[in-house]
Amino acid sequence: MPKISPDQLDARRREILDAARVCFARHGYEGATVRRLEGETGLSRGAIFHHFRDKESLFLAVAEDDAAEMAVTVARNGLVQVMRDLLARAADPAAPDTAGWLGTQLEVSRRLRTDPDFAAAWAQRAEAVGTATRERLSRQRDAAVLREDVPLGVLAQFLELAYDGLVLHLAMGRPADALDEVLDLVEEAVRRPAG
Amino acid sequence: MPKISPDQLDARRREILDAARVCFARHGYEGATVRRLEGETGLSRGAIFHHFRDKESLFLAVAEDDAAEMAVTVARNGLVQVMRDLLARAADPAAPDTAGWLGTQLEVSRRLRTDPDFAAAWAQRAEAVGTATRERLSRQRDAAVLREDVPLGVLAQFLELAYDGLVLHLAMGRPADALDEVLDLVEEAVRRPAG
Repeated sequence: MPKISPDQLDARRREILDAARVCFARHGYEGATVRRLEGETGLSRGAIFHHFRDKESLFLAVAEDDAAEMAVTVARNGLVQVMRDLLARAADPAAPDTAGWLGTQLEVSRRLRTDPDFAAAWAQRAEAVGTATRERLSRQRDAAVLREDVPLGVLAQFLELAYDGLVLHLAMGRPADALDEVLDLVEEAVRRPAG
Repeated sequence: MPKISPDQLDARRREILDAARVCFARHGYEGATVRRLEGETGLSRGAIFHHFRDKESLFLAVAEDDAAEMAVTVARNGLVQVMRDLLARAADPAAPDTAGWLGTQLEVSRRLRTDPDFAAAWAQRAEAVGTATRERLSRQRDAAVLREDVPLGVLAQFLELAYDGLVLHLAMGRPADALDEVLDLVEEAVRRPAG
């Protein structure tokens, strides 16, 4: 029998993560039973938990995966662009798994509130996005794009507040139509005034 | 035996709502079992469901109660002031039930996402806060306090986005220290520029 290569293992792990994300988002953490995870991934529990110790680890891996991807995008394009992308995907019914991704974010927020162990495990991972946001703002300030009368940390928190608001708004299925202009306002609020 | 007056009925109803809010926030909708609701209210299930048809009705009543109170405050003081009050209460460990109130908001958002019947029942109630926000902004525009280069509906949505972000931020137990300055930025972004 041929050995499974690291690449194949990686691909399998990714398949499980993507299916699990959908399942957690649709049913919540408690509602995402092992049976449902089997159904969504098309794999047996044995196969799933060969890759992840337990449901808790699987959920944390999904959430970490999302946070890591977001930190990369923030570092490259900034948090406002992340929000614009999110909005574009939410408005596009053909876009994959936006609802799943949003659902995971809300499920993380719920578990942070109700589960102190999860909150402790999460705290250090979540820091990556905050760091990426501040570093990018710092480069923008150097490029004289940013307003200078407000501390950088306050601007970063303002953007994060808008981001959290967008997540909650979209995850509740509220209409996204006027939000492009709202994001223009958000962007303008952190920029150096024109002229 | 003396009859129970409408005032007494009302007071009892309010007691149940307040205790149920704490219970839903702490355990989530599914986790707030009838037994836990009995424990938190100090009443039997018979007494509780004399006032509310079932758990669903009780939860909807808690959420409506919160939305109605918020609409009144928004109409009087504006959404930015609602955010400032929320922040002050979150920073004050002696303040009653902030966590409960925040938890209800998040629980509403989760059920809107996972339960279409609830979403339908909720939609018309939630509109009250949006209406109060727009009416107040309209009065502020008449008083020349507001910027005029952005449509009123966009300003209202911007404030609602910030509000949702604040709810999610605080409900996740994240630090509230720099948020006063963040709210200054939010307020400034909708105001007519000075001078």
